[in-house]
Amino acid sequence: MREENKYLKRGVDYPIIEGRRTLPGKYYHDQNIYKEELTKIFYNHWIYACRAEEIHAAGDYKLIQVGDESIILVRDKSLNIHALFNVCRHRGTQLCTELEGNFESKSIQCPYHSWVYALDGKLMGAPLMKEENGFRKENCSLHKAHVHDWEGFLFISLAKNPEPFEVQMEALIGKFSDWNMTELRIARHISYELNCNWKLILQNYQECYHCPGVHPLLSRLTPFESAQHDSSKGAVIGGFMELIKERGSMTMDGEAAGPAVCDVGGDDLQRVYYYSLFPNMLLTPHPDYVMFHRITPLGPEKIVNDCFWLFHPDQINDKRAQKGINSAVDFWDLTNRQDWTVCEQMQSGTKSIRFDRGYYSGREDILYTLDRELLKALEHDDPEEGF
Amino acid sequence: MREENKYLKRGVDYPIIEGRRTLPGKYYHDQNIYKEELTKIFYNHWIYACRAEEIHAAGDYKLIQVGDESIILVRDKSLNIHALFNVCRHRGTQLCTELEGNFESKSIQCPYHSWVYALDGKLMGAPLMKEENGFRKENCSLHKAHVHDWEGFLFISLAKNPEPFEVQMEALIGKFSDWNMTELRIARHISYELNCNWKLILQNYQECYHCPGVHPLLSRLTPFESAQHDSSKGAVIGGFMELIKERGSMTMDGEAAGPAVCDVGGDDLQRVYYYSLFPNMLLTPHPDYVMFHRITPLGPEKIVNDCFWLFHPDQINDKRAQKGINSAVDFWDLTNRQDWTVCEQMQSGTKSIRFDRGYYSGREDILYTLDRELLKALEHDDPEEGF
Amino acid sequence: MREENKYLKRGVDYPIIEGRRTLPGKYYHDQNIYKEELTKIFYNHWIYACRAEEIHAAGDYKLIQVGDESIILVRDKSLNIHALFNVCRHRGTQLCTELEGNFESKSIQCPYHSWVYALDGKLMGAPLMKEENGFRKENCSLHKAHVHDWEGFLFISLAKNPEPFEVQMEALIGKFSDWNMTELRIARHISYELNCNWKLILQNYQECYHCPGVHPLLSRLTPFESAQHDSSKGAVIGGFMELIKERGSMTMDGEAAGPAVCDVGGDDLQRVYYYSLFPNMLLTPHPDYVMFHRITPLGPEKIVNDCFWLFHPDQINDKRAQKGINSAVDFWDLTNRQDWTVCEQMQSGTKSIRFDRGYYSGREDILYTLDRELLKALEHDDPEEGF
Repeated sequence: MREENKYLKRGVDYPIIEGRRTLPGKYYHDQNIYKEELTKIFYNHWIYACRAEEIHAAGDYKLIQVGDESIILVRDKSLNIHALFNVCRHRGTQLCTELEGNFESKSIQCPYHSWVYALDGKLMGAPLMKEENGFRKENCSLHKAHVHDWEGFLFISLAKNPEPFEVQMEALIGKFSDWNMTELRIARHISYELNCNWKLILQNYQECYHCPGVHPLLSRLTPFESAQHDSSKGAVIGGFMELIKERGSMTMDGEAAGPAVCDVGGDDLQRVYYYSLFPNMLLTPHPDYVMFHRITPLGPEKIVNDCFWLFHPDQINDKRAQKGINSAVDFWDLTNRQDWTVCEQMQSGTKSIRFDRGYYSGREDILYTLDRELLKALEHDDPEEGF
Repeated sequence: MREENKYLKRGVDYPIIEGRRTLPGKYYHDQNIYKEELTKIFYNHWIYACRAEEIHAAGDYKLIQVGDESIILVRDKSLNIHALFNVCRHRGTQLCTELEGNFESKSIQCPYHSWVYALDGKLMGAPLMKEENGFRKENCSLHKAHVHDWEGFLFISLAKNPEPFEVQMEALIGKFSDWNMTELRIARHISYELNCNWKLILQNYQECYHCPGVHPLLSRLTPFESAQHDSSKGAVIGGFMELIKERGSMTMDGEAAGPAVCDVGGDDLQRVYYYSLFPNMLLTPHPDYVMFHRITPLGPEKIVNDCFWLFHPDQINDKRAQKGINSAVDFWDLTNRQDWTVCEQMQSGTKSIRFDRGYYSGREDILYTLDRELLKALEHDDPEEGF
Repeated sequence: MREENKYLKRGVDYPIIEGRRTLPGKYYHDQNIYKEELTKIFYNHWIYACRAEEIHAAGDYKLIQVGDESIILVRDKSLNIHALFNVCRHRGTQLCTELEGNFESKSIQCPYHSWVYALDGKLMGAPLMKEENGFRKENCSLHKAHVHDWEGFLFISLAKNPEPFEVQMEALIGKFSDWNMTELRIARHISYELNCNWKLILQNYQECYHCPGVHPLLSRLTPFESAQHDSSKGAVIGGFMELIKERGSMTMDGEAAGPAVCDVGGDDLQRVYYYSLFPNMLLTPHPDYVMFHRITPLGPEKIVNDCFWLFHPDQINDKRAQKGINSAVDFWDLTNRQDWTVCEQMQSGTKSIRFDRGYYSGREDILYTLDRELLKALEHDDPEEGF
């Protein structure tokens, strides 16, 4: 099966070009650029929030942090999901501080002056308030964000009129339907706090030029020359690498962590997909499980990176199948930590007065594309102009 | 004594209006507005510093923090009180770092080059310095702030030419003379560090719309409908609530903490007064004791709130009377903590991009007045204009 | 030997003037002035880095922090020393994070994508990179700073075309040749973290007006009236004080810590020299040892101050001679801490709105000269103009 030159062809719809220039360092440190990113990207694009299973029952909620905004993602009595700004319309008090829970009263009450909202955000009660001087209850519903459920993944958009999810994420639609991801469940979750810009994580995820030096184990399981890109449209940039072991997977010993997920078959049994859903999600379907990251920026030089492992509930509930889950978790925890170290060192180095712009190798050409997406979203001039 | 409609009338010299708008959120977070507040309010108005009893003897001093300024409040040999900037005139060294103490030499010596000042700030000695090139000792006294003693409360003003205390605090003069507050002494002190803007504490103090939800015990002792405002002139905004229990007070069981203070009698035996002395003091006379807060802003989102309980010295010195003191302290410590939680949540929520301005209920109308005081002091346009 | 009026004459080439004015307080706190200082001074002047002995063998390196820049000071196979910016030319990753060590491979490899540099900074390998689109290996050597070895002290300059070391430090050349400092070795090192501006340390070092009050022990060993300045040219300002005890030194008991160093003789046997090498080194040769400080600014209000004691290796290796070394270390550790306290208090006090500018005594006149050096380097108008 291993052919001599099977890894020669790479990328999809663009020529591979060596030596293109990276972004200037300020894109990783500047406070004003960061604020622009919040406004033009994080408060405007579709953002991965959480899995539908995490707010399973009526009244279940989860607080989602998007930049400086706190959003209450809540399921109502009809099991519909709403994304509400966590800000009382009376005087601006944050309604809810527990990161997750259940509104047992099936309503949200402000702790300060007891205004009460329905789970769809409608103002139900404002004690003693008369409707005078421009105050009308009907105008004081909680501000809402948009919600979209894609295969059990809940996305939200804080934009007033967001682009349809299917347009922003076009390349994703139908791509992984064999996995039936709606059926999968979270088996494990690890949260990492990192001192680097959010974009360094996306860049790190989209190239395997660093794999031989940084990830010796990963490189044994999936040779870095096997990296292919099969999509780069809109917010979705993706590709895959080939598993060297027949029916193997990304685990500590390279053996599958369990049976193939749902309807996965054919070429997909030998592939690990790497899809970044700009700006805050990295989706990594394996034949036997799905790993994904959610990136939450806390400043230009700080993020929380939450890593989740999805397995089929049959495996999660099977005591004898835990070894495979553990091995997948251990593999990625090891690999993640290897990445975090170099990302944090890149963060430091790019602050130097002598760092103007670096050079991308041909194996990092997709990062050049990613940079263009960013510049377009920020409506910034391309620093390439004038070179 | 409880009449049917005794709580209907509220406020003093203005109509109650529902639905007026709050300040925009930036007034609670913006660093530049905070700096303006320091300059135009904290370095300009009369500020509560400490009780005269705290610097009782000759040489006693206390450091008072006002914004970024450190002031030495000191009693000299003639028992006069001086407020001196804690900055040596030689090269700017802070003279004193201990928060309180006694200058036993009856002078203040700079620890760096040993310049010596009298307790009234006059430069007494500058070792080896000749009076040349514009250096004259008589021009190098410590910079002074103004001091005013009102009923044992020491106020200072960093303004070069402050408005007279009696003008700024006109509504206060004579108001509580039955308490003879000069005679009272500090029985207890608790210091709280809070993550909120200083103005949220004043707002919280001036309305009882939040009491039923936030303070169930307080609301049983003084029904929130009983809140009246009887003054809002200059820096002083005040009112009272009625004690439901005959000869009761604000304690854990609602019983008086001790006998009525000095000459307190008549209606005052059934009232708890709430007077805010803009910008940094909240004065709460009860029939049997006086509680007050001093607010020290440390930034737009951080304050220290010092809470003090004054009792008559006869009670402080009476072992059998400690239970009443403890009960008053416990009651307000509980109530304070309930308030701090909601103030900190309001601080967080008002940062949202979706929070423009909230709506005051009729029961919060005095806050609208308070906001106008602030805007006037800052010389800002009223955001109400144009609505 | 003690003559009546031996201490009357002071200074060198300027009249002693009382009552000149200090810098305005903003020079110690302002973030923008600090950034200007980094650019115009710390990234432009010769900066003391470390002793040559600290990177003794081929491959030995040390990271040197200069403002926000990290420099790798490394000795190559031919034992030449190079100062390399710690920033990979590929994508800006910091190459090295350990503060000191040995590059055993005699090369520097980036941990991210494995680019390899020789110890002189030349790019040796960029795996898989083709020389296309403007990418040429020969253009991608590590950025370099200049290095100068003066008597075993390594200085670096981040300027592209620095003024020659001998010009900037003219007054230093040959001045201390009797000490043969190249032969001396570090016997002890203490690192202090201080909350004050870097310039306050230089000011503190250049006047002994503070000694009687702050340093009673030092003042007994070297009377403050003995302080003379014998140089103030370019970056070098220096002088000396006289040891009162025949063949004494700065130790806890005033006795010499050991024999005179190398060829030190004559008047130098009774002197302690205090030379500040603007901006970051304080050099203090004693008859029997050399003490020096390296100042590393971390912000306008924060520095690290590293204090080193150099002795002759014969004494360092002589067990019976350790008591003298310990006594010299203890003496300066005590004296340092006395200084840090007053420097930190000056830092606090100069922030006051009431601190405009202070007055220098005649015994601090050299600080006026030092301030002029700073203003010249920053190309700022002299605040003296207009007085």
